[in-house]
Amino acid sequence: MSVEIERKFLVLGSGWKALGQGVAIRQGYLSTNPDRVVRVRIEDDAATLTIKGRTNGITRGEWEYAIPLAEADQLLNDLCERPLIEKTRTRILHEGMVWEVDEFFGDNLGLVVAEIELDSEEQAFSRPDWIAEEVTDDARYFNANLLRHPFSAW
Amino acid sequence: MSVEIERKFLVLGSGWKALGQGVAIRQGYLSTNPDRVVRVRIEDDAATLTIKGRTNGITRGEWEYAIPLAEADQLLNDLCERPLIEKTRTRILHEGMVWEVDEFFGDNLGLVVAEIELDSEEQAFSRPDWIAEEVTDDARYFNANLLRHPFSAW
Repeated sequence: MSVEIERKFLVLGSGWKALGQGVAIRQGYLSTNPDRVVRVRIEDDAATLTIKGRTNGITRGEWEYAIPLAEADQLLNDLCERPLIEKTRTRILHEGMVWEVDEFFGDNLGLVVAEIELDSEEQAFSRPDWIAEEVTDDARYFNANLLRHPFSAW
Repeated sequence: MSVEIERKFLVLGSGWKALGQGVAIRQGYLSTNPDRVVRVRIEDDAATLTIKGRTNGITRGEWEYAIPLAEADQLLNDLCERPLIEKTRTRILHEGMVWEVDEFFGDNLGLVVAEIELDSEEQAFSRPDWIAEEVTDDARYFNANLLRHPFSAW
């Protein structure tokens, strides 16, 4: 298990797009129960099966396993809950830290969020000028919740 | 994905116990949704994460991944639905085919079932004399269902 400490923010404008190269992500869920989320993800040509425990503050247990791409494709096509989530992830280096900016498509078109992974809950970091309000604790933005309550319906 | 074709039977008496060596299995579920079951299992000192699709007749899609034992232990202790399932599995060779006899403990104490894995739905096989009625299609005997409706409550 790794412990995932992430903070999530809304994003201003589209100027961030010039700062990195986006990669396509397609993901789906075998469980969206917040006590035991099970996610299948294909990013570029790599596939993972990820298990996440309940979030405690901004800390969350996470177990991740690489799986064959073809099997991830089967799981996404045949087994995962509908709809799948499709987004483009752009990694942007800012003052020594990596920001991951996710631009959503489909039912979540128009939603753009940026995440930063920290080593501790107290770690300081610099906010790029394209970062807006923090939504770490807003459950609407959990990817698993974007399935049933997509951004377009807010 | 492999396709799992199994038939499941009740078991008569305890004479079968002399025919093989039992190994301890401890397993739990991250999802018991019959469309996308996600199981964590420790058998002896090997751990697996297994995903199963919906059963069609006696055929079921199955994806299985080996995971580190210590991580399986974390998942069982911290994340899986309660209760866990504990059973002893005894593999018995009978006329060239392997039967797996599962003897349950805890809330399912008293339940003993035997499974045989086939290459096709039509494949013929010989029934040992300790095999009783078939329960392949009886959902009560699905391991995932034995959590919420254990044998002791039938």
